[in-house]
Amino acid sequence: MNQLKLESMLKRFFLEDIGDGDISGERLFAKNTIGTFSFHAKEEGIFCGEDIITIGFSMFNNGVKCNLLKHDGDLLNKGDLIAKIEGPIQTLLAGERVILNLVQRMSGIATATRQAVNQTVHSTAKICDTRKTTPGLRMLEKYAVRMGGAFNHRNGLYDCVMLKDNHIAFAGSITSAVNTIRSRIGHTIKIETEIETKAQLIEAIEAGVDIIMFDNRTPEEIKEWLPLVPLHITTEVSGGIQYNQIKDYAATGVDWISLGSLTHSVKALDISALVQLKGVTQIAH
Amino acid sequence: MNQLKLESMLKRFFLEDIGDGDISGERLFAKNTIGTFSFHAKEEGIFCGEDIITIGFSMFNNGVKCNLLKHDGDLLNKGDLIAKIEGPIQTLLAGERVILNLVQRMSGIATATRQAVNQTVHSTAKICDTRKTTPGLRMLEKYAVRMGGAFNHRNGLYDCVMLKDNHIAFAGSITSAVNTIRSRIGHTIKIETEIETKAQLIEAIEAGVDIIMFDNRTPEEIKEWLPLVPLHITTEVSGGIQYNQIKDYAATGVDWISLGSLTHSVKALDISALVQLKGVTQIAH
Amino acid sequence: MNQLKLESMLKRFFLEDIGDGDISGERLFAKNTIGTFSFHAKEEGIFCGEDIITIGFSMFNNGVKCNLLKHDGDLLNKGDLIAKIEGPIQTLLAGERVILNLVQRMSGIATATRQAVNQTVHSTAKICDTRKTTPGLRMLEKYAVRMGGAFNHRNGLYDCVMLKDNHIAFAGSITSAVNTIRSRIGHTIKIETEIETKAQLIEAIEAGVDIIMFDNRTPEEIKEWLPLVPLHITTEVSGGIQYNQIKDYAATGVDWISLGSLTHSVKALDISALVQLKGVTQIAH
Amino acid sequence: MNQLKLESMLKRFFLEDIGDGDISGERLFAKNTIGTFSFHAKEEGIFCGEDIITIGFSMFNNGVKCNLLKHDGDLLNKGDLIAKIEGPIQTLLAGERVILNLVQRMSGIATATRQAVNQTVHSTAKICDTRKTTPGLRMLEKYAVRMGGAFNHRNGLYDCVMLKDNHIAFAGSITSAVNTIRSRIGHTIKIETEIETKAQLIEAIEAGVDIIMFDNRTPEEIKEWLPLVPLHITTEVSGGIQYNQIKDYAATGVDWISLGSLTHSVKALDISALVQLKGVTQIAH
Amino acid sequence: MNQLKLESMLKRFFLEDIGDGDISGERLFAKNTIGTFSFHAKEEGIFCGEDIITIGFSMFNNGVKCNLLKHDGDLLNKGDLIAKIEGPIQTLLAGERVILNLVQRMSGIATATRQAVNQTVHSTAKICDTRKTTPGLRMLEKYAVRMGGAFNHRNGLYDCVMLKDNHIAFAGSITSAVNTIRSRIGHTIKIETEIETKAQLIEAIEAGVDIIMFDNRTPEEIKEWLPLVPLHITTEVSGGIQYNQIKDYAATGVDWISLGSLTHSVKALDISALVQLKGVTQIAH
Amino acid sequence: MNQLKLESMLKRFFLEDIGDGDISGERLFAKNTIGTFSFHAKEEGIFCGEDIITIGFSMFNNGVKCNLLKHDGDLLNKGDLIAKIEGPIQTLLAGERVILNLVQRMSGIATATRQAVNQTVHSTAKICDTRKTTPGLRMLEKYAVRMGGAFNHRNGLYDCVMLKDNHIAFAGSITSAVNTIRSRIGHTIKIETEIETKAQLIEAIEAGVDIIMFDNRTPEEIKEWLPLVPLHITTEVSGGIQYNQIKDYAATGVDWISLGSLTHSVKALDISALVQLKGVTQIAH
Repeated sequence: MNQLKLESMLKRFFLEDIGDGDISGERLFAKNTIGTFSFHAKEEGIFCGEDIITIGFSMFNNGVKCNLLKHDGDLLNKGDLIAKIEGPIQTLLAGERVILNLVQRMSGIATATRQAVNQTVHSTAKICDTRKTTPGLRMLEKYAVRMGGAFNHRNGLYDCVMLKDNHIAFAGSITSAVNTIRSRIGHTIKIETEIETKAQLIEAIEAGVDIIMFDNRTPEEIKEWLPLVPLHITTEVSGGIQYNQIKDYAATGVDWISLGSLTHSVKALDISALVQLKGVTQIAH
Repeated sequence: MNQLKLESMLKRFFLEDIGDGDISGERLFAKNTIGTFSFHAKEEGIFCGEDIITIGFSMFNNGVKCNLLKHDGDLLNKGDLIAKIEGPIQTLLAGERVILNLVQRMSGIATATRQAVNQTVHSTAKICDTRKTTPGLRMLEKYAVRMGGAFNHRNGLYDCVMLKDNHIAFAGSITSAVNTIRSRIGHTIKIETEIETKAQLIEAIEAGVDIIMFDNRTPEEIKEWLPLVPLHITTEVSGGIQYNQIKDYAATGVDWISLGSLTHSVKALDISALVQLKGVTQIAH
Repeated sequence: MNQLKLESMLKRFFLEDIGDGDISGERLFAKNTIGTFSFHAKEEGIFCGEDIITIGFSMFNNGVKCNLLKHDGDLLNKGDLIAKIEGPIQTLLAGERVILNLVQRMSGIATATRQAVNQTVHSTAKICDTRKTTPGLRMLEKYAVRMGGAFNHRNGLYDCVMLKDNHIAFAGSITSAVNTIRSRIGHTIKIETEIETKAQLIEAIEAGVDIIMFDNRTPEEIKEWLPLVPLHITTEVSGGIQYNQIKDYAATGVDWISLGSLTHSVKALDISALVQLKGVTQIAH
Repeated sequence: MNQLKLESMLKRFFLEDIGDGDISGERLFAKNTIGTFSFHAKEEGIFCGEDIITIGFSMFNNGVKCNLLKHDGDLLNKGDLIAKIEGPIQTLLAGERVILNLVQRMSGIATATRQAVNQTVHSTAKICDTRKTTPGLRMLEKYAVRMGGAFNHRNGLYDCVMLKDNHIAFAGSITSAVNTIRSRIGHTIKIETEIETKAQLIEAIEAGVDIIMFDNRTPEEIKEWLPLVPLHITTEVSGGIQYNQIKDYAATGVDWISLGSLTHSVKALDISALVQLKGVTQIAH
Repeated sequence: MNQLKLESMLKRFFLEDIGDGDISGERLFAKNTIGTFSFHAKEEGIFCGEDIITIGFSMFNNGVKCNLLKHDGDLLNKGDLIAKIEGPIQTLLAGERVILNLVQRMSGIATATRQAVNQTVHSTAKICDTRKTTPGLRMLEKYAVRMGGAFNHRNGLYDCVMLKDNHIAFAGSITSAVNTIRSRIGHTIKIETEIETKAQLIEAIEAGVDIIMFDNRTPEEIKEWLPLVPLHITTEVSGGIQYNQIKDYAATGVDWISLGSLTHSVKALDISALVQLKGVTQIAH
Repeated sequence: MNQLKLESMLKRFFLEDIGDGDISGERLFAKNTIGTFSFHAKEEGIFCGEDIITIGFSMFNNGVKCNLLKHDGDLLNKGDLIAKIEGPIQTLLAGERVILNLVQRMSGIATATRQAVNQTVHSTAKICDTRKTTPGLRMLEKYAVRMGGAFNHRNGLYDCVMLKDNHIAFAGSITSAVNTIRSRIGHTIKIETEIETKAQLIEAIEAGVDIIMFDNRTPEEIKEWLPLVPLHITTEVSGGIQYNQIKDYAATGVDWISLGSLTHSVKALDISALVQLKGVTQIAH
């Protein structure tokens, strides 16, 4: 992750939540009263978001100390202590919600990713994400996918050519689209094309694309068609694949399975902030 | 929604996805080649996001025409046509993913909200959201909650006082916290406090808060405690309430039920873009 | 105050004044030559702006040391030393004007506010501000009002409903406007309405608003009408109220007096920067 | 004025006031309901701010029509109609306060400036402003000074060298400061120096500065010292000059009188928005 | 090019040059006085920058009409008319310098690129750029390279792995570096490695990189080593290659020649703005 | 230089190059692995860019230590060590290219400037720059000109009036243009006018401009015309002056020679980053 970019993002997110000031925390506590916070797992999953915690609280510039007990990619059991944060109470209260929202979301993605990856262990297939990320959070969500043990597909429209059915339709044919693109891009960019039929598959192979994506095909179709694909072409399957279908797709021998659901329908992992006060630990929701 | 703010957000989101350019669309098609796109529902739900579509495509400044057939809050049946967009193919392709990501997410929130609201029809309880929104998207997600038929809780830390268990613990007691805050805020701001016990409830009533929030209490506890609350104090229940518990909570007579799940674990509604080409309609994913 | 937002504001203000560089200070003095500055009151008033001084100079990142002798809300007598700042001469000269402009303005607001508050001591009326703040400075000006001993009315169009005569006219009646709004906002938002006649007052009471604002009414009218208002409705008076009228309005028994003049026509408090050099103290203007 | 910069400023100011939305206007009126607004003078003065009105409302992008009846620098009599604006009611209500705040402030500056300029009519002295402007508003305030009939002193620390007493003290002498600076700046930049004594005046003349500023000197001192200044050096007087002292200073024969009060202690000119509804005109405050 | 990004860049560049206003143009001419400008080539070269002209002037929002006679990639002969622009004189003068600076620079890059490409016509080698672009202008400079007939190497550190000598040194060996990277990136990203010796070449081939870059090697070395490289690996040569060496490198059979000089040492193409006035054409510099 | 502005610029430039992350450096090395980098001159020239190195690397916030052995304006001989930087390898690799691009460019400008200045040593003429700078880099490029030993002409359209042939044409005459401008600007702004003929020269002198610029005139013309110019008017020559013409122009007695070529056609100075590893020094390109 680019930490300079992360700081800009966090600044924007804090501004969204705090506005002109936290009227609860600022009016109740003095600027320099110190307190201690800890983050705990309330369910099992994969942790992701250590930079969010350490950089997030430190942006308030008050000498906040963060002690991380878990690191990105670590397994969390219910009740596990993730981090302890000591600093001005005003800062702890002002930063808590935004930081929790991000960490819960990133950990939710990492957890779902790990589960998907686990479905592929008896195959050579690898899991990757898509561009179906939450607008404004792509860097964080793609990072969480990596921490969950999977890989990133292209970052955006700028770093890999992807010919979808509509590109092909407008261009007239896969052959024509690939030829046009090939003549206009450099050697560091790969060309991927979606295919839906066997005829398209053969056309894509002959056009010399780098990656062929089977779009909304069944495991059976893929198994039948894969032998036609030469070794130097990478294969990928995509299109609304459910968790319980991963194993079947992985078993086809396809190289990559891309899952939009990893990021477009995230279930946040339950993590909560605990306040430590006069020897008593209380649960904040 | 503040449309000036919406434009800034969309600009940032498009920049994230497009970077220095869409190397697929820009290299394949001429700048001024016109095409037609339509957005269709692939499952049932509540539509939300008309401004995203109309303002989003128009920001590329190419005379894009958007014809909306559905409006925010409308019911979508599977297959329904939502909007037709005519404009440069480069623009359609460059804007599609970001716009779909947002519309699917907002429609997902509106749909889940409508379902929650439907659970309250035989009661006087109303549904509202929380601050557990996706960082950077709060304005859009809170708008979607309204289009789903529910209401917004506070926007951020700046527009309503909320005394949580940690505030109370640090301040020593509800009474002391309320008194301190009351002496430092104006008359346009309400004070809400969480309570977890009957003793806290009585203390909160005596302290004269505006809103009392029953935190992680069962419907039975709430039913038992509600008669103690004078009419001019608003009541709210919160804390990990599941969809199938809403009816029971609504039946207690509580005024408001706040649901973090409306925004922190969104299931995107499936909406797709269809390209219309030479009389042939094709499905783009 | 949100200090992350304050930093962004100060950065913008310094950029406005310094542009590509301070051609006087930078060309005369070496980067690391250290000097000492002190801020003094040149007239009596209430000080406001300690964060402006400490955060402002520290943003130039040169190990500037700020020693504050006065704090926000303190009384300043003519000649009082407010703060001593030691750091690179280039930084002192580059930051001085912007910091003084802000501190003088905020202290001017705090001073005028304290004077207004003093007019209410024999009453239960409280003073608050309005949205007639200087564009771009609202957070600072509303903070200064608080440091002067008064309170903040709503922050903006987003955190309290305010029905003015034009809203009422367009909606047809107070009753209709209140009913429409009430059905579309959550329970954390208050509804305030302006009234100009006794009939409007009665209508507003019956419509169940939270706050009634007597718009441009005389103390006599207010005294006559107040007994009609039930205890649970807050009352406010507004509309070009002069300093010498405050006592009369306060005596009516109204709850709140809002004063646009606190922020829309600010008289800066005279505060100057003194340079300490070789044992000699000189006055900089 | 740089209109691209003006747009950025207005966007920031609207965001400050409107936040995530105008909960009064947006919830009461439909998006496309059209209304008419007019701006009227409630006291005599000089108008300034036509771009604020026309560009401000147009930024909401709704085909707002602005018909200006007064232009920057025009005299306003009490009751004068300044502009008529027709557009969506939501836009009129959302933009009104920020636009009025700016126009009132700029007209207040133009009015005070015109009064100051009027004090110089029987002399050759000209009035100019200083850097004591409101942070974030310098472009607008300096424009208002010009529309009031006066001139701008330097824009910031970047476009003219100004040697104040502290620069001189640190540099050791005027001569040394001027020599150092002269060797480091180009030929498009002027050098101005403050002087407080006759000895300093003579030193400044011999050092060959372009502008000499009499700092906090009486009209008598200036009259006595002016004959010593050669014709090619411009003279200026500054330092807390009150409105009723301008005529005396102007009579000394000095070239320029700079007034910090034009911008640091602005009295807003009273201008109000009138809503026109079904043939009925109502006053909005 | 991403036009939304281009607008942001142009806005920033205009702000840099115009600041608070063009004191020459704004003070001399009325806001609505219309004039005509034309851009002419003063030397032979390749034109690039049509979007800069059309979008640039239109950002001032004054109904400026741009009539383009040359398009990106067109050959310019000395004296050729490139574009005619009609609009407010204030706008023409305010926008001229920034637009010319960009167009001259981009045309300079396109021209140098075309010359380099011409050296490769009797070979299969293609020319590409590097990351040695001017900070802040990469999108524009890489676009100009394409308009000159060459191709883009990676956009930044984010879209292609490039193992340079330092990466290899730190990682211990090419093999180890490639293996580590390969296990952490997705299938849309290519891996390129620099090599300086025959041993490194063989190691890179065995490690299975996608692209091998001969770093600072002579044409003779490359000719000798190329037969070792299997067909599916792309080859590139780089390292301070001069214009007069291109032909020799192209003749080696290498696939790509990357040239930092295309962008890091640009000679602007001489293009000037002509004002048309009362039938008289005058040359502006 | 304004260091607050420099930080904003560097942040933008790093974002351009690094995007969402350096996929080579971040995937190969652990976050906290420390390495050492040194910057060396690969050719003779004038160094410029120490703030770029120290502030640039420090922005990544990792306790990077920069030891500068050369300072802005110092002569570099081939092979000279400029700076040693110790910090996380990830940071060194992420920051290297942007920092080198800037330092090479600024040093290239300083070097070309020093060469131009050397041509004037036997005259009283001074060298200055123009507004033909790279958009977005003006502050840095004008700083480099100063470090090369020359001076800055105006910063932008906002800090000096410059009447070019087109202004004069539109205004009708130099006299008319100067009179109009003079009546609308303050006393801190100078007026410069271009002249192309002897008649224009005489008109400009009579109009009382501050600076006369001989536009595209030969040394002979200037020598002939200079005696007509009174001493208090500054003279300047401009217009495509080549390096080998500087001496001739300087010999005419003109005060200033402005050179667009210093910034519009920069040849980067060759500076490279060396990685120090296990006692072995390697050259990175």
